[in-house]
Amino acid sequence: MNFAPESDSSPQLDPQDGADRPLSDRPWDELRDLVSGGDPDNLESFFDSLPSGEIARAISRLDEEDQTTLMQSLSPEVAAGLIEEVSDIQAADLIERLPADDAAAIFNELESDQQADLLVELSQDNAEAILAAMDPEEASQARQLAGYEPETGGGLMITEYLRYTTEQSVQDVLDDLRANAEEYADYDVQYAYVVSDSGTLQGVLRLRDLLLSRGKRPIAELMIRQPHAVRVEDSLDHLAQFFDRHHFFGVPVVESDNRLVGVIRKSDVEEALAGRADVYSMELQGIIGGEELRTMPVWTRSSRRLAWLAANVVLNLVAVSVIAVYEDTLAAVISLAVFLPLISDMGGNAGVQAIAVSIRELSLGLLKPHELLWVAMKEASVGVINGIALGLLVGIAGWLWQQNAWLGLVVGGAMAINTVIAVIAGGLMPLVLKRFGADPALAAGPLLTTVTDMSGFFLVLSFATAMLSWLVP
Amino acid sequence: MNFAPESDSSPQLDPQDGADRPLSDRPWDELRDLVSGGDPDNLESFFDSLPSGEIARAISRLDEEDQTTLMQSLSPEVAAGLIEEVSDIQAADLIERLPADDAAAIFNELESDQQADLLVELSQDNAEAILAAMDPEEASQARQLAGYEPETGGGLMITEYLRYTTEQSVQDVLDDLRANAEEYADYDVQYAYVVSDSGTLQGVLRLRDLLLSRGKRPIAELMIRQPHAVRVEDSLDHLAQFFDRHHFFGVPVVESDNRLVGVIRKSDVEEALAGRADVYSMELQGIIGGEELRTMPVWTRSSRRLAWLAANVVLNLVAVSVIAVYEDTLAAVISLAVFLPLISDMGGNAGVQAIAVSIRELSLGLLKPHELLWVAMKEASVGVINGIALGLLVGIAGWLWQQNAWLGLVVGGAMAINTVIAVIAGGLMPLVLKRFGADPALAAGPLLTTVTDMSGFFLVLSFATAMLSWLVP
Repeated sequence: MNFAPESDSSPQLDPQDGADRPLSDRPWDELRDLVSGGDPDNLESFFDSLPSGEIARAISRLDEEDQTTLMQSLSPEVAAGLIEEVSDIQAADLIERLPADDAAAIFNELESDQQADLLVELSQDNAEAILAAMDPEEASQARQLAGYEPETGGGLMITEYLRYTTEQSVQDVLDDLRANAEEYADYDVQYAYVVSDSGTLQGVLRLRDLLLSRGKRPIAELMIRQPHAVRVEDSLDHLAQFFDRHHFFGVPVVESDNRLVGVIRKSDVEEALAGRADVYSMELQGIIGGEELRTMPVWTRSSRRLAWLAANVVLNLVAVSVIAVYEDTLAAVISLAVFLPLISDMGGNAGVQAIAVSIRELSLGLLKPHELLWVAMKEASVGVINGIALGLLVGIAGWLWQQNAWLGLVVGGAMAINTVIAVIAGGLMPLVLKRFGADPALAAGPLLTTVTDMSGFFLVLSFATAMLSWLVP
Repeated sequence: MNFAPESDSSPQLDPQDGADRPLSDRPWDELRDLVSGGDPDNLESFFDSLPSGEIARAISRLDEEDQTTLMQSLSPEVAAGLIEEVSDIQAADLIERLPADDAAAIFNELESDQQADLLVELSQDNAEAILAAMDPEEASQARQLAGYEPETGGGLMITEYLRYTTEQSVQDVLDDLRANAEEYADYDVQYAYVVSDSGTLQGVLRLRDLLLSRGKRPIAELMIRQPHAVRVEDSLDHLAQFFDRHHFFGVPVVESDNRLVGVIRKSDVEEALAGRADVYSMELQGIIGGEELRTMPVWTRSSRRLAWLAANVVLNLVAVSVIAVYEDTLAAVISLAVFLPLISDMGGNAGVQAIAVSIRELSLGLLKPHELLWVAMKEASVGVINGIALGLLVGIAGWLWQQNAWLGLVVGGAMAINTVIAVIAGGLMPLVLKRFGADPALAAGPLLTTVTDMSGFFLVLSFATAMLSWLVP
């Protein structure tokens, strides 16, 4: 079993990820047969032989009943290994369908931060039932961790770390390391943390320094005093900046009274940043209310997608109502109908670029939400250049197609001005949304295209109305 | 100086990030004065007092000349600390304007993977000039690292790690740790790596195990044999899966002949994943050819954005040409012009959701590029449900507005069918692009909206043409 956590204590040559085994394109067919067979050893060696990265897909393609039978056939250790292989959302799905006792046995085998991540994904009732059936000490830790906000120091920390008190000696630490070697094998820490009797953080002990010390020396003499620490309520951005600034591999986490409650590893912070970037790009594309997998029930998938689409239809109806106002102009110059979608679309495209740059600069700390004027100036210069370029392109196309220079002027001018409006509106939109506490990834795009659609339609049709006598042949 | 790397060897209480200091909204004004003053100590204490996260913004708002003077006024260690504070693209900008000797002095202070990351951002000539002026050993390492593909084992590894040979004893290792304590203070490794005389990887030594051993024992007896390793050419996806599977904090990297050449830390892999997700969401929004900061020259910003916009104008012109074909129908039923942008936009929105799910499932390994039929079936069911819902909404709006049930049927029917086409096309687009080796983030959106615009326009206008006698009052 090379994916269970305990294998980490005895590294071995990477088993070529099952490359020596003929690869079925549908490994879930074989898995389904093994599940009906019900032999845990066969299942275990099946997963061992599967290339890494195939496990999640194979499990996801089983039906729900087979998934549940699979989880119950395996030992809790092996099942926990599978849970670590799949994404949180898939894991929650697998866990949620198990009886609480079985789920709790698997939970007992997970790391504290994974327990907390999964508990957040479960329904309240399921989470409570599982906690009640868990090892009481594990459960109370998991309950505490799950109580912190997800993207904070408390939400990201782990509670598996080396902890000693100021009275202990080097020999005490060595004895403890020896006695608990097996348990500590999974701890990826090169530091031990030193606390007072009341649990407040006093210092950090580098294991490397123990190597060079005599056994009787108190660790209080050896530890680094007044160590850097972060607080349970610190935000992910703060933590990311902390690890940018300090080349640490982990940092202790304290409550406001300086009590040590956990450790955050740099890799956990980086993982959370990657997760946030993923959520951001999903939201940008209209996947909201949590991740969607195609193995989820069709009603869940369609209703979540529809919620976002319905809001967009309403915004779109508002925007296109501008066209209805100018029906007479449109009837007189029907070729304008070709340019309406073109100019509104291109306004949206130009504005979305400016949104992207603002969101990026905000997240890099290069921009503050109140710097509206600076952004407007910077966008205006780009907007004028690109507006002229796009306006010329579209204007010349209109002129040549209809052999009417005035039509070219109308559509080219509208394109140019709409581009300037779009990039300024797009650049400002994330700043304004952020000041109102809204999520720019979710709202900026649809709001912007409503603005650029309306202004695009209005510009083309009002210019055309003003110049109608030159446009009608 | 709390942001320079050497501070890491002596952790201290986090200095509240300068919160006790009255915060100017424009810290670059003060910085500009200090740069003219030219006193490195004043500059250093200015940066010490600035809240973390303000440094990048303050530097970015100086003009180029002041930025260069600033970097030259600071000691190379402090300048390297600043370089680590800012994003790679900003760092490359700062470095590029320095004389090669000054740049090389700063480079000597950076970690090997940071050197390599920066070299990739620089122009070939600048990179060569800096390498020529660097410490020869550092330069040859940096050159070697920069030669690997960025998102591979070679590109992500560091070359600062503990390395011993099989003949050495526990005491040899302890002596080495003691002798080089200062240099090793920055290494975040809890493992040492053991190689043969020819440099092939033989084992991994946990520093923790050294604690419990006698000095004369050869480390070959203590090391974990046949350790896990990855290869220089392994992809970021492979490495991400490796660290998902194994709870290691770092893994040795070998060439194909099993020669040990570096170590990859889990946090570096997570950081690369976060970076990739950022690039993906920027590309989705049309920021291509590298990151854009508003402090860059306006021509760079506008020309890069224009490249993507111009491609979109061409695709858009193709799409709207469908409307021109049906001008007669449109002239007869002018109210259709209102629904053309609505139906094409909503098709794009529905399709983009399906693109997002496909790209996500591909990256989670839950989907393979050849599973076209499975995706089409899964999308069709969602498309039919949401198509009917959106079709009813738009159809009823059309009916009520024009008091014509046939118009409602035309626009509602077109909306429904276009939604089904859009989600199937959107779901398949990333799979097809991936099979052709194209970048789905860049191409899927614009290609999809061209398809959905054309099909939307065609459906509305061809239905209307067929039912023209019922639509005209």
